[in-house]
Amino acid sequence: MTGSGVRAVVVTVGEELLSGATVDGNAAWLGRALAGLGIPVDHRLTVGDRDDDIVRAVRTSLDRAPVVLVTGGLGPTADDRTRPAVARALGVDLVEDPLLVERLRERLRAAGRGAPTPGLRRLALRPTAGRALPNPAGAAPGLVFDAGSPDAPGRVVLLPGVPREMRALFPAVAQELRAVFGDRLRPVVNRVIHTTGIPESELAPRVDRALADAAAEVEVAFLPDLTGVDLRLTTAVEPPGDEGARERAAARLDGAEAALASVLDGVRFEAASGDLVETVAGLLEGRGWWLATAESCTGGLLAQRWTARAGASRTFRGGVVAYANEVKEGWLGVPAAVLEAQGAVSEAVAVAMATGACQALDAECGVGITGVAGPGGGTPDKPVGTVWIAVSVPGPGGGRRTEAFRGQYPGDREAVRVMAAQAALHRLFRMLAAPSEEAGS
Amino acid sequence: MTGSGVRAVVVTVGEELLSGATVDGNAAWLGRALAGLGIPVDHRLTVGDRDDDIVRAVRTSLDRAPVVLVTGGLGPTADDRTRPAVARALGVDLVEDPLLVERLRERLRAAGRGAPTPGLRRLALRPTAGRALPNPAGAAPGLVFDAGSPDAPGRVVLLPGVPREMRALFPAVAQELRAVFGDRLRPVVNRVIHTTGIPESELAPRVDRALADAAAEVEVAFLPDLTGVDLRLTTAVEPPGDEGARERAAARLDGAEAALASVLDGVRFEAASGDLVETVAGLLEGRGWWLATAESCTGGLLAQRWTARAGASRTFRGGVVAYANEVKEGWLGVPAAVLEAQGAVSEAVAVAMATGACQALDAECGVGITGVAGPGGGTPDKPVGTVWIAVSVPGPGGGRRTEAFRGQYPGDREAVRVMAAQAALHRLFRMLAAPSEEAGS
Repeated sequence: MTGSGVRAVVVTVGEELLSGATVDGNAAWLGRALAGLGIPVDHRLTVGDRDDDIVRAVRTSLDRAPVVLVTGGLGPTADDRTRPAVARALGVDLVEDPLLVERLRERLRAAGRGAPTPGLRRLALRPTAGRALPNPAGAAPGLVFDAGSPDAPGRVVLLPGVPREMRALFPAVAQELRAVFGDRLRPVVNRVIHTTGIPESELAPRVDRALADAAAEVEVAFLPDLTGVDLRLTTAVEPPGDEGARERAAARLDGAEAALASVLDGVRFEAASGDLVETVAGLLEGRGWWLATAESCTGGLLAQRWTARAGASRTFRGGVVAYANEVKEGWLGVPAAVLEAQGAVSEAVAVAMATGACQALDAECGVGITGVAGPGGGTPDKPVGTVWIAVSVPGPGGGRRTEAFRGQYPGDREAVRVMAAQAALHRLFRMLAAPSEEAGS
Repeated sequence: MTGSGVRAVVVTVGEELLSGATVDGNAAWLGRALAGLGIPVDHRLTVGDRDDDIVRAVRTSLDRAPVVLVTGGLGPTADDRTRPAVARALGVDLVEDPLLVERLRERLRAAGRGAPTPGLRRLALRPTAGRALPNPAGAAPGLVFDAGSPDAPGRVVLLPGVPREMRALFPAVAQELRAVFGDRLRPVVNRVIHTTGIPESELAPRVDRALADAAAEVEVAFLPDLTGVDLRLTTAVEPPGDEGARERAAARLDGAEAALASVLDGVRFEAASGDLVETVAGLLEGRGWWLATAESCTGGLLAQRWTARAGASRTFRGGVVAYANEVKEGWLGVPAAVLEAQGAVSEAVAVAMATGACQALDAECGVGITGVAGPGGGTPDKPVGTVWIAVSVPGPGGGRRTEAFRGQYPGDREAVRVMAAQAALHRLFRMLAAPSEEAGS
């Protein structure tokens, strides 16, 4: 056992995990869920569907931590070995539980099927020292095996490998572990702050400076992806039993957030989904405005992202993927002379695309994106990753406010496209959030 | 050690893996790569950035298998513990390698930076018993530590955790392991067959029947996702040393493939990337034809997918995301009366979108997609998941051939959109592959 709190070992079972046919998403999910409960994961183990390996995994894991979560191998077929192997590892017997048999019969009746086969009846087994956890999402119940001693209790918990079922069972697992380990848990609270438009290498030192003296007990993690960097602030709820501990933890997070305010100015956005589209769509909906998009190098990626969210029809008028120059001319009214003189990847064309989309699609707000996504097509003046982006919104006095900028995005075709679409969204966000900031072209 | 062949243990290092901030994709990738090399993974272990845990992981892993691959924790910062911990576990010293120092200096010079800091100089360390593997994609070299004895050799291989770098280094690892373990490897050969338009539940029993007597030594795995089901055929190269073994294995796969021909008719496609867009784009390019898309519920997803591939400008004219009905009318010439009488989700509108896209965008081939992606908007007649799809291509005698069909796709908004776009591509594929199959409307 490491540290003073309770730690856990996560064991995932399945040949398909070892062979790489399946990526182990359960392990990551359990890591987050257990951390939230106050039980950090000590280490993780993945084994195949072999009894001896599962037995060894459970025994060595219990040597290291009092909580062992095992997922996978709980189904009704012969290669589902977890149930008997864990029983063997702990020297516990499995018995058929009449209540579980009855549940199983009900499930089969509801599906219009007959009496359970011997294989299916395995799903009604539970440990003599332990209990079953009803599965709200499937046939295989979770199982809790008692381990350790009254003075030093341990629990080995078996959950199905089907992610949906594993997740549905977790609340019952949390309840069990809280009941057993109560005041030895070290719960933490998190707060996630979304940012975009600033690389981690710039953001991190500023955040670290801002938090240096403000909140010693708040840890910060940086979670970057192509669309931005999430900050995760974490602090412990201590002492766990204390009523006021949770409030004090929240106050510490508030303090850290306040200390970060100036650093985050202009790059922070709030969205439950973590998707900036949610934020911008909310601003548009609040004003009753429509969006239209004109995309070249992003090829519909921005429209696709926008419409991936339910309710997009309340804010999204439509879009044009203007891949060929003739489409830019014919549909968006980009003058052929402009295309000729400045090239398709230019400020003038981006602006013409954004304003052309507004007019052609009868929308208040328009975005135009034209660039070189690569891998080919780069020139010394406009290397791969060069993208011109224009955003047009209603301006003061019934006019328009249109802003354009040139981005230079690193990485492959996919990265350039994702970053360009995000930069366009970010500019639209800032123009909507600060309507009077400056007058446009 | 298990079995007669050589097995491996994969150890991934990083607190972010245990906390679930990152999903461990490296482990799955290495599982596939090692299996292809003839080294199945015995088990997998994930530990945090703590010396003692890494030392223990390496020692217990070597007790089980002669090959241990460790990824992560090779960077230049203080919490990168893998290099010294593995050296400690094996009782091997680390020395600075002049060649590695020179490489590092070159990298820094190329990036316009000065001499390496003490932290960066760690990247120039290599084991006294072992060697460094140059990293073609980053600064941290891979390291091979010799373990075991001349009679029973072992290797502990350290690779960076950055997926791109880990993958770039793997060929050098494969070479090393082949040199050491040669005739003890149990290589297998795979062949992947892509299908679309048939669910796994229909495909699997047909495939199993077709392969029942044809190829006892060929294993088949089904790898489904929202766009289709890949079949992976696997057979062993045995005996590994034998010159003819690889040919015999290939012949077995040929036999299995031949036995599957009738089952796969109309649903199989060939694409190195596994993406049906590659196949269809190839057919269009061969004829010198252009594609135009008109999307409603998929919101640009098909255009986005098409343009995600380099070279899309040779086949893709452009697209319209016709979200609002007015856009369908104004830009695609879908008659208002048709929209009124039949509704936006109807055969007539899909056909008008497909042919309207061809005309408006001056393209030979057009696709129209209109449907109810959900979660709202369903009706008893047209429940969530209802999608009308039309595809129009040049027909015989200078006319057009246009086909439309109604799909009903299960799942959430994302699933409906992905499956509808794929179904449209599949129909276009079949119409291009079998131009004379039937006359269209």
